[in-house]
Amino acid sequence: MSRIAYVNGRYLPYAQAAVHVEDRGFQFADAVYEVVAVVGGRLVDAEGHLVRLERSLDELRILRPMSRTALAMVLAETVRRNRVQTGHIYLQVSRGAARREFAFPAGVSPTVVAIARNVDMTKADASARRGVAAISQPDIRWGRCDIKTVGLLAAALAKQAAKEAGAYEAWLVDRDGFVTEGSSSNAWIVTADGALVTRPLGHAILGGITRSAVFELARQEGLRLEERPFTLTEALAAREAFVTSTSSYVMPVTSIDGKPVGNGGPGLVAGRLRAIYEAHSASHGAGRPDWQAQFLAP
Amino acid sequence: MSRIAYVNGRYLPYAQAAVHVEDRGFQFADAVYEVVAVVGGRLVDAEGHLVRLERSLDELRILRPMSRTALAMVLAETVRRNRVQTGHIYLQVSRGAARREFAFPAGVSPTVVAIARNVDMTKADASARRGVAAISQPDIRWGRCDIKTVGLLAAALAKQAAKEAGAYEAWLVDRDGFVTEGSSSNAWIVTADGALVTRPLGHAILGGITRSAVFELARQEGLRLEERPFTLTEALAAREAFVTSTSSYVMPVTSIDGKPVGNGGPGLVAGRLRAIYEAHSASHGAGRPDWQAQFLAP
Repeated sequence: MSRIAYVNGRYLPYAQAAVHVEDRGFQFADAVYEVVAVVGGRLVDAEGHLVRLERSLDELRILRPMSRTALAMVLAETVRRNRVQTGHIYLQVSRGAARREFAFPAGVSPTVVAIARNVDMTKADASARRGVAAISQPDIRWGRCDIKTVGLLAAALAKQAAKEAGAYEAWLVDRDGFVTEGSSSNAWIVTADGALVTRPLGHAILGGITRSAVFELARQEGLRLEERPFTLTEALAAREAFVTSTSSYVMPVTSIDGKPVGNGGPGLVAGRLRAIYEAHSASHGAGRPDWQAQFLAP
Repeated sequence: MSRIAYVNGRYLPYAQAAVHVEDRGFQFADAVYEVVAVVGGRLVDAEGHLVRLERSLDELRILRPMSRTALAMVLAETVRRNRVQTGHIYLQVSRGAARREFAFPAGVSPTVVAIARNVDMTKADASARRGVAAISQPDIRWGRCDIKTVGLLAAALAKQAAKEAGAYEAWLVDRDGFVTEGSSSNAWIVTADGALVTRPLGHAILGGITRSAVFELARQEGLRLEERPFTLTEALAAREAFVTSTSSYVMPVTSIDGKPVGNGGPGLVAGRLRAIYEAHSASHGAGRPDWQAQFLAP
């Protein structure tokens, strides 16, 4: 559970943590967010998340509420006050509260909220050993999925469809038949000839922090990497499939729409990448990629 | 200004009206809304708005928070406590507050917020006499614009672009070159041969309450109606163009992207429809269409 939430400069008991009813995050999805993993009480890849947050804010012309260093201190303090050892912290910045109008209101200050929680990773670890199921869903999201906004209803509906189908994740498929990403993860396959394939950055997907870290780690491992779109058919013919995200790390996908991927069990490449990503997390992101280069507008 | 806001059963001073930081309306745009006009202290087309709200809730499987009659009473009481004579009331219902997860949380109660305001219509009336400018923008919204969700960021960005171009509204254009609707209005044209054209209902547009009312009033006037998509080129060759919405009623569009529509002045059809729509509003929606039939999923 979360005991203390940060809201606009104050650390409040969770039950009292609130935003105004005319906050644009509530009325317009005019807000961006980050979820940062916490391992050993410390943030993982914090710089990457904060660089991406600034890019999201800049793309929407939401004022940066404070310096990157000050935000990092807020996150660390929220983690500390909630005694989070293994878990994550959620950070949301909205354009602020103002009398409702579609265009940007004048003279408004951004709203900043942070919520930290311990998470029991036992279940995720067990899922990683067994592999998880995915289903496909049409990607009906908006045209700027590279901006990490709270406009997540389409993703929530896809995740709900996955849950009801007994699956872990929904892979979203664009109108040309290519997989964009998971509802809250990036999608990867390992082809029959051993290439690691994931969709290139662009407006259709989020530039995942874990995606970037795994990409860099895979390169250091000497794996062959291909950034290109792939279809569901190609995924079903692949040797392995997996997803990456802050909360699932590297999670093997062993079936899609009820059909097995590869031999139907977790793959070697996914297993190896999960292990080295866990080491990366335990080091809090040492040897990280150049985050500034990860989220450039295409 | 708004003095008293309704939040989950309580009438609160506006400054204290708040929702929890983990309300799904704030974190996932998992919420729907209505804006109902108030004329002479009474709601206009209230039944249509409440029927549409229920449809939005049902499409997303958000629990209906109370009966239609109870909601109407909340709206009327909020209008009364704010002494609104001419203006509108904003009603938002979210799935509720819960520990953040993408899938629907269990055992959650919907959050209900209502905010009422007087609006000085002088400016809108002056705009209607002069006509307004529109610009075109690519429609990058999600695939279910028929559900009136608060996932309005794409619309807000389009409206901001219009504002910066000195225009009143942005007309959104789909990837096939057809106008879907305005960022917060439905789009109409009157062709050279006198047909009134607006896009048919479907997932690409909101089934506007004012759209339905104007459609019905135009039919009663004996105007020839065509529900079909039209392009920007067709709009620029039209005799008239206008938008309809709860807040703008019927608003003549006299230029698009800086090029004049028709003779560059407000058209006769738009003027006539605005006049009879004002009479409809003053009667609070007497002679209204069959609202149940207006928002059926295509």
